[in-house]
Amino acid sequence: MYNFNKENFLKVMNGAVGVKPEVDKIVEAVMKKGYKTLFLVGSGGSMAIMLPFEYLLKAHARIDVRTEIAAELMVRDSKFLNKDALVILSSLSGTTKETVAACKYCKEREAVTIGLVGELGTPLADLADHVLVNYSENDFAGDSIYIQLFELIFGLMHANGDFPEYEEFMEEFKAMPEALYGMKEAVEPAMMEFAKKYKNETYHMLVGSGSVWGETYSYGMCVLEEMQWIRTRPIHAAEFFHGTLELVEKDTSVVLMKGEDETRPLMDRVERFAGQYTDKLSVFDTKAYPLKGISEKFRVYLSPLMICTIFEVLSTHLEKERNHSLDLRRYYRVIEY
Amino acid sequence: MYNFNKENFLKVMNGAVGVKPEVDKIVEAVMKKGYKTLFLVGSGGSMAIMLPFEYLLKAHARIDVRTEIAAELMVRDSKFLNKDALVILSSLSGTTKETVAACKYCKEREAVTIGLVGELGTPLADLADHVLVNYSENDFAGDSIYIQLFELIFGLMHANGDFPEYEEFMEEFKAMPEALYGMKEAVEPAMMEFAKKYKNETYHMLVGSGSVWGETYSYGMCVLEEMQWIRTRPIHAAEFFHGTLELVEKDTSVVLMKGEDETRPLMDRVERFAGQYTDKLSVFDTKAYPLKGISEKFRVYLSPLMICTIFEVLSTHLEKERNHSLDLRRYYRVIEY
Repeated sequence: MYNFNKENFLKVMNGAVGVKPEVDKIVEAVMKKGYKTLFLVGSGGSMAIMLPFEYLLKAHARIDVRTEIAAELMVRDSKFLNKDALVILSSLSGTTKETVAACKYCKEREAVTIGLVGELGTPLADLADHVLVNYSENDFAGDSIYIQLFELIFGLMHANGDFPEYEEFMEEFKAMPEALYGMKEAVEPAMMEFAKKYKNETYHMLVGSGSVWGETYSYGMCVLEEMQWIRTRPIHAAEFFHGTLELVEKDTSVVLMKGEDETRPLMDRVERFAGQYTDKLSVFDTKAYPLKGISEKFRVYLSPLMICTIFEVLSTHLEKERNHSLDLRRYYRVIEY
Repeated sequence: MYNFNKENFLKVMNGAVGVKPEVDKIVEAVMKKGYKTLFLVGSGGSMAIMLPFEYLLKAHARIDVRTEIAAELMVRDSKFLNKDALVILSSLSGTTKETVAACKYCKEREAVTIGLVGELGTPLADLADHVLVNYSENDFAGDSIYIQLFELIFGLMHANGDFPEYEEFMEEFKAMPEALYGMKEAVEPAMMEFAKKYKNETYHMLVGSGSVWGETYSYGMCVLEEMQWIRTRPIHAAEFFHGTLELVEKDTSVVLMKGEDETRPLMDRVERFAGQYTDKLSVFDTKAYPLKGISEKFRVYLSPLMICTIFEVLSTHLEKERNHSLDLRRYYRVIEY
């Protein structure tokens, strides 16, 4: 694969899968103390990666869950953020200002906090009551955090009596590193083609739904906008029909991130519509790609991880075809704001 | 005011204020039965208008609230959607397919439903357990539904012991029709200027936060995109700094919807940033406009209604300056999809 270090990738993924014993300890401790509300807190990409889990919890669990934008939570507060709250936050560097501040804020309200970080000895790792740690290059951070969040959040669901297949699911996770690599390899030709064809496109509609919506939101904002400076309109498949559709013309690029959960019919509807009214419809459907060693019945939960893993392949090809480094910024860490 | 029928507006607004006795009856009935979870359900604009109330409830109440996209709720379900749930939905025509279907879906799960409609004898009015009815032209629908939702949802907060000032707040609502009209008049010159200056602009970033975010989402999608066919990127002020900012250049239009709630500092930050890096920053700040007869202390809650009412003035001026009817559609009710 282009610009991809398989060895490093597998190492990071195996590290993520390997946090399971630590997850077990955390879930046990958290259940022993008990909690009433689960807060998933972050900013930008680290908030967006929580949205799929909010969806999955809403679909499959009797756990009261709410995703919060860190900066907003700290000015608005919540009557449910107290000693009965459990808070999950992630920061690869362990230093993201808003996330560290949010962790502190939650602790002051006596909530129990769990931090996902890339390194110990960092501010978030030092602050959080419980820590999951797995070093990762930026390129693999999405996959790595997804795997850990699946372990942790499905562990909480299991402990709550909502996901009896947990240990079976986790057993299969041992195959996940190679499975994800295989999926990336399988999707690469399609991503290369898209990058070549659309390298000069100045605007994309990016459509997703259900457990994939967080990925749609995040890929649009953190990759296409931030890393490639392309105007992008992330839009939920159900919401697409309540306004955004009117912008579709023959030459409007519409990109579908299609997963395998219950909301697939909502994506089918956009696909049928866009197929009629634009010549630039691109559909990336996880169903077209194998995830070797993972049972069919578990794929429904894994839609956001699969979308994340295949779109990471697109990023490197956009970088190449557009001759625009993924690390180039106008403002972030360039100027103070 | 341009293309504005004051008499009709005041009639509709007074009608909205006048549902208060019906609200009292509904709140009493709902509290008598009791509920554990409050669902706010809609699609597009009718979902977006719920987001401010989700924010306000999160900020000020101990009520478990969740906003849901109707179509997604019906395929995903929720373990909390049962006889202990209270569901609020709105449809001006009373016929919106997804909303009517969602109401039916919720009733089948034994939830109690409240419908806001423009007319009795319509499907939503017939289905919902409780109904608030106020006829409105499309132009005033936002203001009308806001007023009724403030009455209803703050009534629920009051009944829950979370908003002791409710009756005082409601007493002041009697001044709301004239107050909103006055605000529209006061903002018209600024909106006219914006419409003239930016009539040929092909892309706007539209920024909002907190209780205003739902308006940002909805104005971008339902007015700028749907009714004016202008590419728009609605973005939350806190999230702006996690990607979208990188698109800002000297000639990028950035429009701020600035309200008066706790998240104002997040908007200030975007304003400082954008003021430095684009020549096309437009700030619409509710603080600049009077709301006659409404106490200063209540304005914090009213930010989304104030933003809604002033941006409705912009719509008519965009229509005029851009010579693009607000009723023109490529697809909606033109073709089947």
